Formats: sequence, C-alpha cells, structure tokens
Amino acid sequence: MAYYNSNFNSLKENYLFIDIAKKIKQYQSENPDKTLIRMGIGDVTLPLAPVVVEALKKGADEMGQKETFKGYEDSGKGYMFLREAISKYYKSFGANVYPDEILISDGAKSDCGNIVDIFSEKNVVLVTDPAYPVYVDSNIMSGKKIIYASSNEENGFAAMPDKNVDCDIIYLCSPNNPTGSVYTKEQLEEWVNYARDMRAIIIFDAAYEAFIQDDSLPRSIYTIKGARECAIEICSLSKTAGFTGMRCGYTVIPNELCAYTVDFEGASVSSLWSRRQGSKFNGVAYPIQCAAAAVFTKEGIKQTRENIAYYMENARIMTETCDELGIKYTGGKNSPYIWLKCPNGMGSWEFFDFLLNEIQVVGTPGEGFGPNGKGWFRLTAFGSRENTMEAMSRLKNLLKK
Amino acid sequence: MAYYNSNFNSLKENYLFIDIAKKIKQYQSENPDKTLIRMGIGDVTLPLAPVVVEALKKGADEMGQKETFKGYEDSGKGYMFLREAISKYYKSFGANVYPDEILISDGAKSDCGNIVDIFSEKNVVLVTDPAYPVYVDSNIMSGKKIIYASSNEENGFAAMPDKNVDCDIIYLCSPNNPTGSVYTKEQLEEWVNYARDMRAIIIFDAAYEAFIQDDSLPRSIYTIKGARECAIEICSLSKTAGFTGMRCGYTVIPNELCAYTVDFEGASVSSLWSRRQGSKFNGVAYPIQCAAAAVFTKEGIKQTRENIAYYMENARIMTETCDELGIKYTGGKNSPYIWLKCPNGMGSWEFFDFLLNEIQVVGTPGEGFGPNGKGWFRLTAFGSRENTMEAMSRLKNLLKK
Repeated sequence: MAYYNSNFNSLKENYLFIDIAKKIKQYQSENPDKTLIRMGIGDVTLPLAPVVVEALKKGADEMGQKETFKGYEDSGKGYMFLREAISKYYKSFGANVYPDEILISDGAKSDCGNIVDIFSEKNVVLVTDPAYPVYVDSNIMSGKKIIYASSNEENGFAAMPDKNVDCDIIYLCSPNNPTGSVYTKEQLEEWVNYARDMRAIIIFDAAYEAFIQDDSLPRSIYTIKGARECAIEICSLSKTAGFTGMRCGYTVIPNELCAYTVDFEGASVSSLWSRRQGSKFNGVAYPIQCAAAAVFTKEGIKQTRENIAYYMENARIMTETCDELGIKYTGGKNSPYIWLKCPNGMGSWEFFDFLLNEIQVVGTPGEGFGPNGKGWFRLTAFGSRENTMEAMSRLKNLLKK
Repeated sequence: MAYYNSNFNSLKENYLFIDIAKKIKQYQSENPDKTLIRMGIGDVTLPLAPVVVEALKKGADEMGQKETFKGYEDSGKGYMFLREAISKYYKSFGANVYPDEILISDGAKSDCGNIVDIFSEKNVVLVTDPAYPVYVDSNIMSGKKIIYASSNEENGFAAMPDKNVDCDIIYLCSPNNPTGSVYTKEQLEEWVNYARDMRAIIIFDAAYEAFIQDDSLPRSIYTIKGARECAIEICSLSKTAGFTGMRCGYTVIPNELCAYTVDFEGASVSSLWSRRQGSKFNGVAYPIQCAAAAVFTKEGIKQTRENIAYYMENARIMTETCDELGIKYTGGKNSPYIWLKCPNGMGSWEFFDFLLNEIQVVGTPGEGFGPNGKGWFRLTAFGSRENTMEAMSRLKNLLKK
C-alpha cells in the first residue's frame, strides 16, 4: 500500500491568499462598479527589458538550426557564459564568487525548497518570524525541527542571533520579504560569527538585492568575512529583471563549505548538491539562459535598473504617504516591500477589510507570514505609478478624515 | 552543526559516464587522427521544429510588451492552453486525462526525482533491473527501501509482477530506457491489476511514447482500465519534440488517486503533489510553454513526427544490421534504443573497448543501468543518418571478419 509522507499532516494550511481571494470575490460581486487597486501581490508588472527579449529570440533561433541547436547541457549546472557573467556581477559589489560555485536554477523558490534534501532531519532549523513561507513548509515536509528568531518592532523586523540558542541551519532573507528590512554589514557579521561558532549553515536569500539603494548595505553575504565557510546564497532574476514568468535564478555554494555526519565527518555541500541535482534536475532552457546572460551585460544592467528605479519611485511615494500619516513602517527604502503597522490598533485582517471596503485597495495581512505579523500589513511597490499614486491619495483621504 | 543527509552515503557513485569519458579521452589522445561516432548518448540532435521556434519567439515578444507580459503563473501548474492541448493529445490515442490532472513541469527528470517527497520512507519501492538510474537514486536519497524486478533475456527485458512480492511504489518505463522493450496492453493490465490488489502506486515513465510505431501498443498507462486508481504518468517533450535543451514535461495525477497513512486513511495524491509543488516550484517559463503548446498543434505534430521518423529510420538501419549479424537485441522497433547482447560472449566493457578501438564507435555498457545489464550494450538512434550508416557499415566489416 502506498504510504504518503505523514509530515505533510504537520503543514499548516496557509489560507491567507485563498481567504484574500474569497474576500475580493465577494466584494466584487457585491460592488461590480468598483475597481480594485492590488498592492498585495509580490509580482512585477513591467515587461522584460528589450535586450533580454532580443537575447531570448536569438537563443530561440539557435535552437532552430542544426549547427547551433543545444540539447542537454552537459553539467546541468548552467552554461559557463552565464555563470561567468554572474561571477563578474558579484565582483562589481565586492563579493568573490567563482563561476564553478554558481549553479543556475529555475528560480530561487525551487532551490530554496529543494536544498532541504541534502540535510539530515536531525538538524534544528532557525527561521525568522515573520518569513517567506517556503522556508517553513519545505522543512516541515522533510521532518525537520523548526525554531524561530523574533523579528519585531523593537529590532526593526531584523532578527538577530541569540548565542544561547543552538541551531544547525539558519534562513535569512535580506532585503527581507515581507518586512523590507535590510541587514547592515555589522548585523550580518554577527550572524556569520554565530553560524561559524556553531558550524551551522546560513541559507541566505538575496532575491531582492537589486533593490538596495544604500551602497553601504550588503548585497551578498559573501561581502562578509568568513561567509564562504558558513553560507549558501540563493538569488533570482525574478525581481532583479522581471523574470517571474521566465524562471531563472542562481545558487552559490562556496567550494569550502562543509556539512557533517554525527561523527563530525565533513562532506562538501557543493558535492552533495551536485549529486542531488544530478538525479533530480536537468538544467534551465538554453534560450532562458541566453536571456538571463543579457541581464548582466552593460545594457542589460542599465535597462533592468530603470525598471527597478520605477518601482522604487513607487516605494518612495508610499513611504512618503506613511510618513505624512504618521504610520510606522519598515522597508520601502531598499526594498520593494513596505511593512506597516496597522493604524489605530487595527488587526491585520481588520485593516485589510477596512482598505478593501473603504478605498478598494488590496494588501496582504502580515500574520500570513508568521505570528509576529499580527497587526502589520504588507504593501508592494510593483504596481503602476498611476495606481500607486491613486491608492496613496485614497489612503490619505481615508485616514485624515 | 549542520548535518547532511546520511542517505547520500548509500548512493552508489555511478562511474559509468565518467569512465566512458576517461576511456574516450585516452583513446583520442593516443589516436588524434581518428574520428569517433558517438552512439551512446540519449540526446537528440535535430533542431527544434520551425513551428516551435516561431511560438517561442512569439512568447518572447509578448514578454516584452506591457499589455501581454506574464509574471508568475497563478497556479504554477501550467497554462490552461497547454494543459488542454495535452489532454486533447491524450484523447487522440484513447486515454482520458483531464486538463486539471495535467501538471506542466521542467522535465520528466525533475518530477520523477521530486515525486519521492510526497511518499513515506516506509514504502517498499519496486524498480526494474536494468532501469534509468534516477528511480533508484532519488529513492535512496529519501531513505526508501528498494527491491528489484528482473528484466532479462528470458522475458524480453520486460519485467512482470510477482504476486508473491509485496511492494508499495512501482516504477515502470515503456518504451523502456535502456532496453527499448515496450509493454503490451495485456502486460500493462497485469501490472495495473497487481498494483490495485496491493493499493500500490505505479509511477509510469512514458517519455518515449512518441516512438511507438505499432498502434496496438499502449502509449499511456491510462489506456488500461483501472490505471486511474493506481498510476501517476510522467512524460516529457525532450524526445517527443527535441526539448532536451528546452526543459518541459508533464505529469498526470488522476483526481481519484489516493495514498494512505498506516491507519489506512486516504489522501489525494494530487493534493499532496500540489502542496509540494506549491512550496518548491514556480512553474515553467511562459515562452517555453508557448513553444510546448505548438508541439501539439496539427503542424507541430507533423513536424515533430518527421524528426522521430528520421530517428526511427536510423533505428531500422541498426536493427537490420543486428539481424544480419545474428546479434540478439530488444528495442529499435518502437523505441530509439537498441539493447543488444554483446557478441561472442563479450562483457559490456569488453565490447565497449572493442568497438572503440576497432571501429571508433562509442556506445553504453549495459551494466551501467543495473546488474542485469551485464553482457548487454545500448546504442541510440539519435545520431545523424550518415554517422549511423557509417557505424553500422564498420560494425558489419568488423564482425564478419
């Protein structure tokens, strides 16, 4: 008899987005004349940069000609032209990451979820609260114990290590989804030292690095001394270059990174991951890798950063509105997310209903990302300028009443 | 301290392709004037069909325009236009599979490897010997017990169920990689009945279905009565349409398929897989899905079947040669693989060296796919016509000596 993985019974059904969809549906059926402004979804809206489209089409043409057709990519780890481009990009902000340490994937979510395969169920996993739900769910599915580090108003929603707490695997995300907070160099140094002391491994989610405007903030954990001995970095082109519908990311595993048996025997994490991927993954489509490489050209960086500047101007308008209204928030300065404290002591869902009913603006209740999100609310800067301005204008009118 | 998954220690290092590469390298350095004919690799060589390239470029253009840009695909399960096209394709050979049961993936290897996540480590997994190594390795990594069903010369390398053997998960591949054998309707019925009697689940790998020439042979397990209650089918466009470098496949999970707890409580396999993919996968690139949908248009089927006909003519030339030389083999009639018994009682590696040294033809020693492959050898029909004819001509000269 086929038995299912009983760890799945321990997963909490996340009804957040289902409940949001239900509430929206009901509101729309009762108010067919009203138009909603959606500021809840973490998806981009601007099209791919021209240089990226061009590279994708060139890759397509190559696939149509016998002389340039590409079948399986031998390594499954990504074409060297792309890995070299990413290595060069890392160098541009002071992180030394070699091409053979960069593994091309179909997105940060896949690697973030699949990386659990190489780790023992004996590990105690530290996740910040609130956090991107994938960290929690993928570890529950594989039977690992999860403990939480509190991100809260007091620490600016940037949880710091507690030396009295033991753990083996640590998930960090900076700039953070959902809170928009960004670790400083000193804060990341503290995490790296903590991890090294315990021989723990940090899984560092850098999916939003391209939104950092303040050059003193670290774009990669590898700008921190010692990180190569304790950290995996997972990154994505989803937000950097509008690749949410293109599916391409990259994971960095330094050659010196080790994991251990209970008898303290070390094994190369890079080898473990290669073995895993060798059996369960066959690389990313060649035309998609061509498009990804175009992102890292001079023109590609220029064009994609123009899109990010557009979103960051939205974020500026949003934080300006919060400042004006005296709403507390984190994020929005170096991140596309604004994480705000619901005004007048409202709960997350209460504020959700309030915005939906009063000004037809949809956001995301913070408690969907963990208990510490109660009373907080996430807005994203990925909308159009017009909608963002309209939503903020309505919010001002509503709260100034 | 970060502990790694100790199941990885139980993986056998598969040195097959490494050893092949080493031997080739050595031969070439010693014989720089000789040109090798490679008939070992299971990769296609013909370019993408024109209709596919066109659809890929159209999808690329859409991604470059604000009005038609696509971000995350809501469900992550694949666009309905593609799932409907595949459902229609299934109907064309008599299998009822509904669009909502078809899940688009980045290839059969990913789904084949990742499906283990939803099953308990309590399951006893039945794999044929020889077999595609992914079935074995993905189950070892996740700590499941594996038993083997013997495919051998006596049963035409098409293992059949043994009612005295209990198991919970069953991997079948037809047309088979590496042996090229294809299950008849009656044989698959026997497997389906066996699985249903035990409430086991069959994972049916149909990656080579498009190579079936004999219409009486089943292209899908869902042409068999009762299969919807006991089988998952995994398929791919890699060989159907030359997508090895494009990464797109599909997995079918019928709505009625259940897995169980030890207390016999059932759970929907479809829901388990959706939960798994919802946390660890974000769908396939929109332009790739556009290209995939083009495969299932009338013109797409015509163009891609022309490529398959090209490969099958290679296979015919190869089997004709084997017949002429009195070499025993399976496959080649409804499969791009010819699985042959090494002549004159040679071992797999002995025959490999013999072909390499005498006629510069490279194949794959059968024992790389399991112990029952000893003394057998795999050749593929994916080369050019010219190379295939030349290799067969050399083989005739060599063995007729």
